[in-house]
Amino acid sequence: MTYCVGLRLDAGLVFLSDSRTNAGVDQVGTFRKMTVFDQAGDRVMVLMTAGNLSISQSIRQLVGDYVSPDGASIWNAPNLYEAARVLGECVRIVHARDAEALQEFGIEFNVSMIFGGQIKGERCRLFQVYSAGNFIESHNENPYFQIGEAKYGKPILDRVISPASSLDEAAKCALISMDSTLRSNISVGLPLDLLVYESNALALSRRVIIDEGNQYFQMIRRTWGQQLKSVFDGLDNPVWDGDLAPGNNNTPSHAKGV
Amino acid sequence: MTYCVGLRLDAGLVFLSDSRTNAGVDQVGTFRKMTVFDQAGDRVMVLMTAGNLSISQSIRQLVGDYVSPDGASIWNAPNLYEAARVLGECVRIVHARDAEALQEFGIEFNVSMIFGGQIKGERCRLFQVYSAGNFIESHNENPYFQIGEAKYGKPILDRVISPASSLDEAAKCALISMDSTLRSNISVGLPLDLLVYESNALALSRRVIIDEGNQYFQMIRRTWGQQLKSVFDGLDNPVWDGDLAPGNNNTPSHAKGV
Repeated sequence: MTYCVGLRLDAGLVFLSDSRTNAGVDQVGTFRKMTVFDQAGDRVMVLMTAGNLSISQSIRQLVGDYVSPDGASIWNAPNLYEAARVLGECVRIVHARDAEALQEFGIEFNVSMIFGGQIKGERCRLFQVYSAGNFIESHNENPYFQIGEAKYGKPILDRVISPASSLDEAAKCALISMDSTLRSNISVGLPLDLLVYESNALALSRRVIIDEGNQYFQMIRRTWGQQLKSVFDGLDNPVWDGDLAPGNNNTPSHAKGV
Repeated sequence: MTYCVGLRLDAGLVFLSDSRTNAGVDQVGTFRKMTVFDQAGDRVMVLMTAGNLSISQSIRQLVGDYVSPDGASIWNAPNLYEAARVLGECVRIVHARDAEALQEFGIEFNVSMIFGGQIKGERCRLFQVYSAGNFIESHNENPYFQIGEAKYGKPILDRVISPASSLDEAAKCALISMDSTLRSNISVGLPLDLLVYESNALALSRRVIIDEGNQYFQMIRRTWGQQLKSVFDGLDNPVWDGDLAPGNNNTPSHAKGV
């Protein structure tokens, strides 16, 4: 499986993906799932993929070169909506080519993508693209998209992220969300690709591959787990008095400095 | 959907279930998913169900009365393994009666159960029972089972629970796990059934229905969210220095008393 998350904030965009693939437990591999298409000063576009790896790779290969019958490509699209439309066409081309053959082997045409970035003249935008080549766009009420093993890492995003979150906060939150997923699901694995795009930069600056040796992610994993445990220990245990009641006070003891 | 979690600890057992069912968004209902079969001094058995509600209810109805051809029932089973076997037979009886008719309407025979308790003469035991009537047992390496919408609430269990956890800690952790699920998935809803069974009691003492008005759960929901946010804010943001590095120190500022 896979876990990828993309966040659209007032300050820009954050993308994070893992790199584990598996076709059964005896076929586990490492494949990067994030691709960047950029032309400094004009456009930066980031694609993350989940689902069948052969489909994902074909789409990724195709979309960089594809020119649609009406002359549109991701390189000349006037806005990110049009670029997402081109990406959707590429999905349909791969579907037309592979879906029937896959079906003969009982394999579903299964792919999902997060596609976001900025094209000069408009704001940052973020899309989720489906197997049918259709797509939806992120808005303020829903500032992030996840694909793959999304559920383990969703609660922390729901609790912390808003469009006003800073890029660094969002990167930190994405890494915690990934940590929760890594701990609960062995089909998601290191290294990670993290890309942080600052609004209106129209160029890449912050992109990093995170492996076991990365000090920041080590700190996040260790400290988050410890602190969570400490908050947990600090919360009053229930008192059984016929109903379920809090302990003598509602304030976790460590918040009182105990 | 549903979310239920059962925990097997050295000190006893904890069961927590929600009560929301839905058959499409325009058919949302409240049905309790926890049933207790007990005979004080001899046995306490708790069943939680997820999946198709008509199947779950039929199994629940049947298992209390059922006597197998060899004379076995949950009331005379010498141990909980045998009681789980009787439950498995009941699943197969309902399957034989309903599965074909359901299939004609494109409905899968889908049910999963957590079944645990204690029978005099042996320790507490906890089982997960599948649609085929087969089942697995919890051991120390895997001290809990979840059914239904399990993923949102799994990370906190993985981080906190061990067989040595106290019953109160486990109840608290189960409620936090439920809170994360409630926040991220509208198909899971209040009221909750919480049952805590102390090893060797062979009787029920701690059982409560938790609704919006329950003060302990209100405290958990409020405080956990706040404290999580505070731990999050206290973790250093990343520093971009070519690679990704922690800030000036690895200690969250609030842990230093800042």
